[in-house]
Amino acid sequence: MEPVPETRSAMPMIGALKVKAQILCGEEFALGPGKADLLEAIAQEGSISAAGRALGMSYRRSWLLVDTMNRCWAEPLVQTMAGGGKGKGARLTPLGREVLEGYRALEASLAQASAEPLKALAAKLLPAPRASQHPDSEG
Amino acid sequence: MEPVPETRSAMPMIGALKVKAQILCGEEFALGPGKADLLEAIAQEGSISAAGRALGMSYRRSWLLVDTMNRCWAEPLVQTMAGGGKGKGARLTPLGREVLEGYRALEASLAQASAEPLKALAAKLLPAPRASQHPDSEG
Repeated sequence: MEPVPETRSAMPMIGALKVKAQILCGEEFALGPGKADLLEAIAQEGSISAAGRALGMSYRRSWLLVDTMNRCWAEPLVQTMAGGGKGKGARLTPLGREVLEGYRALEASLAQASAEPLKALAAKLLPAPRASQHPDSEG
Repeated sequence: MEPVPETRSAMPMIGALKVKAQILCGEEFALGPGKADLLEAIAQEGSISAAGRALGMSYRRSWLLVDTMNRCWAEPLVQTMAGGGKGKGARLTPLGREVLEGYRALEASLAQASAEPLKALAAKLLPAPRASQHPDSEG
C-alpha cells in the first residue's frame, strides 16, 4: 500500500478534539472527511484508482464514493477522461474544486470555533485514562 | 423501549450538515455525542440503567460508557448512590455537570461557526441524489 499523502486530514485534531463534518443529500452523504480526502487525492494522482490506492481503499469503494458525490451536487465533482479501462485518468471539475475548497474552509472554521470552548474542557481532561478497576461492577 | 428524551441531540443538524465532536483521552473517547446524551439521560432518569433504557442501550453498554468517562477526567463524572443492585441510583457529579455543559457549549459554537461556510456549499447541493445509472461503470 502506498503512503497516505501528507495533505490528508480525515478528521482534524485540535488538541484532544476530533471534529467530523458530514454534508447530507437526502439520506446519502454528499461529502465528509473521507470523500474530501478522495477528491484531494484524485486531484493529486490524476486517476480514481491511483487515488484509492493512495488512501488504502479498494477500486470499487473509491468508485462508489465518486458515484455518490457525482449524484449529490448540482453537477458532477469528478470527471473521467476519454478512453477505456481502469488506467484512464480523472480530474476534479470546477465545481469539484469549489466544493473541496468550501469543505476545507468549513473544517477550518470549525477548528477555530472549537478552540475557546475546548480550553475549559481540556483543563479537566486527563492525558490518559486511569486504569479500569471493575468496568462491569457498581464501583 | 422508552421514548428518547426530547433534549437528546446526538449529532446536531444544521441544514444539511452533521457535526460530530469527540474528545480524546489518550486513545479512548472521553466524550462525544453518545456519552453526552447518556450523561443528560442519567441526570434526567436518576440511574444508569434507566438512562440506558431511555436511549435504547444495554445495561452493560451504558455501564462501560460511564466507566470510560469516569476514568478520563480529573474526577468521575457520574456517581452511584449507596445500596446494591441494578436499581440503585446515579447522578452527575459537579464535574459531570460542568463537562456536559461545556460539551453542549462546544456543540453550539460549532453550529454557529458552520452557518456561513455551509451556505456556499448548500447552494450547490441537491435536495436528494440523482439516480445512479451505473455505479460500477466508468460513466
